[in-house]
Amino acid sequence: MKRNLSMLTDFYEFTMVNGLLEEGKEDIIATFDLYFRTVPDQGGFAIAAGLEQVVEYIENLHFDKSDIEYFRSLNIFDEKFISFLEDFEFTGDVWAIPEGSVVFPNEPLITVKAPSIQCFILETMMLLTVNHQTLIATKANRIVRAAKGRKIIDFGARRAHNADAANFGARASFIGGVVGTSNTLAAKEFNIPALGTMAHSWIMMFDSEYDAFKAYAKKYLDSTVLLVDTYNTLRQGIPNAIKVFDEVLKPMGKRPVGIRLDSGDLAFLSKEARKMLDAAGYEDVEISASSGLDEFIIRELIDQGAKIDTFGVGERLMTSKSNPVFGGVYKLVSVEIDGEEIPKMKISENVAKITTPCFKNLYRFVDRETGKAKADLITLHEETIDDSKELEIFHPTYTWKRKTLKNFKAVPMMKQIFKDGELIYDLPSLEEIIKYREEQVDEMWEEVKRFDRPHQYIVDLSHDLWSIKHELLYPNGKEE
Amino acid sequence: MKRNLSMLTDFYEFTMVNGLLEEGKEDIIATFDLYFRTVPDQGGFAIAAGLEQVVEYIENLHFDKSDIEYFRSLNIFDEKFISFLEDFEFTGDVWAIPEGSVVFPNEPLITVKAPSIQCFILETMMLLTVNHQTLIATKANRIVRAAKGRKIIDFGARRAHNADAANFGARASFIGGVVGTSNTLAAKEFNIPALGTMAHSWIMMFDSEYDAFKAYAKKYLDSTVLLVDTYNTLRQGIPNAIKVFDEVLKPMGKRPVGIRLDSGDLAFLSKEARKMLDAAGYEDVEISASSGLDEFIIRELIDQGAKIDTFGVGERLMTSKSNPVFGGVYKLVSVEIDGEEIPKMKISENVAKITTPCFKNLYRFVDRETGKAKADLITLHEETIDDSKELEIFHPTYTWKRKTLKNFKAVPMMKQIFKDGELIYDLPSLEEIIKYREEQVDEMWEEVKRFDRPHQYIVDLSHDLWSIKHELLYPNGKEE
Repeated sequence: MKRNLSMLTDFYEFTMVNGLLEEGKEDIIATFDLYFRTVPDQGGFAIAAGLEQVVEYIENLHFDKSDIEYFRSLNIFDEKFISFLEDFEFTGDVWAIPEGSVVFPNEPLITVKAPSIQCFILETMMLLTVNHQTLIATKANRIVRAAKGRKIIDFGARRAHNADAANFGARASFIGGVVGTSNTLAAKEFNIPALGTMAHSWIMMFDSEYDAFKAYAKKYLDSTVLLVDTYNTLRQGIPNAIKVFDEVLKPMGKRPVGIRLDSGDLAFLSKEARKMLDAAGYEDVEISASSGLDEFIIRELIDQGAKIDTFGVGERLMTSKSNPVFGGVYKLVSVEIDGEEIPKMKISENVAKITTPCFKNLYRFVDRETGKAKADLITLHEETIDDSKELEIFHPTYTWKRKTLKNFKAVPMMKQIFKDGELIYDLPSLEEIIKYREEQVDEMWEEVKRFDRPHQYIVDLSHDLWSIKHELLYPNGKEE
Repeated sequence: MKRNLSMLTDFYEFTMVNGLLEEGKEDIIATFDLYFRTVPDQGGFAIAAGLEQVVEYIENLHFDKSDIEYFRSLNIFDEKFISFLEDFEFTGDVWAIPEGSVVFPNEPLITVKAPSIQCFILETMMLLTVNHQTLIATKANRIVRAAKGRKIIDFGARRAHNADAANFGARASFIGGVVGTSNTLAAKEFNIPALGTMAHSWIMMFDSEYDAFKAYAKKYLDSTVLLVDTYNTLRQGIPNAIKVFDEVLKPMGKRPVGIRLDSGDLAFLSKEARKMLDAAGYEDVEISASSGLDEFIIRELIDQGAKIDTFGVGERLMTSKSNPVFGGVYKLVSVEIDGEEIPKMKISENVAKITTPCFKNLYRFVDRETGKAKADLITLHEETIDDSKELEIFHPTYTWKRKTLKNFKAVPMMKQIFKDGELIYDLPSLEEIIKYREEQVDEMWEEVKRFDRPHQYIVDLSHDLWSIKHELLYPNGKEE
């Protein structure tokens, strides 16, 4: 069942398209870039996600009868516009950086080149899709890296910003590196392991915690995980769990999977729990913990010697609580009139809001010896990089900051997704995306992965692109 | 087209239900409360929202063939469970506080009384629906109150956490008090005014800003709002706008609607813009502003004498950026065995996480003279309040804090929504919800509405309810 989200478009896109049709500007080919300006949580990089859903959206884009009636009812739209909507079909080209890529500010995550009026229609849904999934994939990857090999599970559905946020958030988290989700719908739809055992209400449905544990263990001999904090973790919960492991599982020759802590001081409780489990012969039984976790708390817990094997992470992952906005934007970078590309740039008093003009491409330079990424270069679309030679790159603002690259591989980062409206890209499976994300993150130096004041990775403009931008900024040939 | 979100349920609900069926506990009637513990942004109250979508979800709850196949494929679920899912139908009772209500921590926003296994299935979707919409309605109302009568428009779709967050976020914002949305789908579905005019890309599609303005004004004679900050607001944007107002609209006898500022210092620019518009005879032309706004910045702008009539608010509203989590929980409060209600309570080392047992009700005491709310009282479900007499209430922890209420009206806050699985509640229209929300907020003293350290509104427990909770907390009759 496909949902039609074509109307999830900012109203001004429609008023602008209606106006462009009136002005006869509908055939002007425009190029728009989708990019972002800052990494959430002041991190070193983001993990691109959401492209598959952008593709589904574009393929399904259409306006139905009730949509048309709605526009007619507003009495400001022309019949030419109505016909355009009725016959809407995307006929343009799309390039994008694949899901799972490590990406940096100002890099074109998606570029759309199409008749201007089509470009406008795509803006809102592309932005909210990429903004949301990239936000959550990036957050998940931070949390996964903080856990240093311990497992992370998504427990966040109940605090997500509604159903799509829970489902696509689970998908994005999986891209970022979580090993499973509590959300059964996401598990089923995206083939992610569904995880979860019991809530406090299970315990409270029985006369005693012991009875509740026993019933659960008997039912789930091969997957017994007991929640031990309903009444008193150390004095009651863990002793009861061990008793049930001994009485129910041991005689059956089964090993319990674990216990879960959901409140209290997780560092202290996990260390005590570990001792108690070990003393009872359950050295292999895992301790999982949940309750208000994120990358910062997990790092602290590990620093304090917490004995936690699996972290269930909820609201702080699913809402990216410490930084819930991924600020992707979608900007006009050129128009093509009579086959000639005219670069476009928005100049702003706010320097960060100045755009980079032209239909572009992106290269990542990877050191052939270390396998680590050294810098990215944004180029004109048709530029190629000869990586058999040395290359000098320079900072676009502080142009005296120069660097000469040697012995590198120039990896083009953008793939063509649509050509003349046809999907020409093989969408990778989630497994492939995750493998690629692992490789991408491995290419980054530890300095770039740091949470606190990470090294700022170099993203420069090619000489040709810089020259065009410089000319538009200083049309009189000099910097004022 | 109804979406089936029945599988958007935490996996442990299903493993627990499978276990309860094995234990023969499926017919135990359980009561669960959905409530929250703290108000976002340390505010004085929240605005309840999302009930209509909870009702739609419950009415549409069913598991289809592919869902059943999914459970079978996991090899841990019994045929009894599969039959339960195949025949699933909600047969219980639901009470709730209506949408638009002012609500406080620990009050039961929704109470479900049903066979235990049904209660479990509802948890996740009810939580995420109410958590999301209540979060956004509350945030929107804060922003609306900060604007002191000036208009607020939702511009946040592109930064929402995916499509549902944009749509239901627009709905919740409207409940909170915004006057319109940029999201066309939400506007169409919920009958909210769709608002928006042009983006910077419109300006950049023309040879000059002046040409772009002229084309727009000619097209939208009755709704001309021009975005004036693409190049230079004061030196170019506003003069061009005035020129176009004079040249295009004046000869047609039309008045422009406004200009929009989207960058720079909005206080300074709006004051300058006001002077320029007034000097040109456009005293009635409105100034709207957008760019990173929320209740705090709007309050500051107004303090600084900004001349802004309408605020477009985006990401900080749609993600509730300063506090993106509404922490609603869903807890077992009683079970009914052989017709006898047995109160249930979770005791936690974290005092805030201790639940309040029993099937409950909620009364608001409104002063008959001032019309202002004085306190709320959580009672046992069957308790009634005789508001013809004085009533003494007391703080549930600091029991010496007592207050005698006189000349008050006791307003029962909860409505029955479902009875034996049948919807018996007339869902109000959005207009009715908004009118009710206005009345509800008007009932609050200014001290409770304050943003900084608001007065903590009194929410006490009735003597009977308090006694039951106290007895469960101190089974030996004394406070340790």
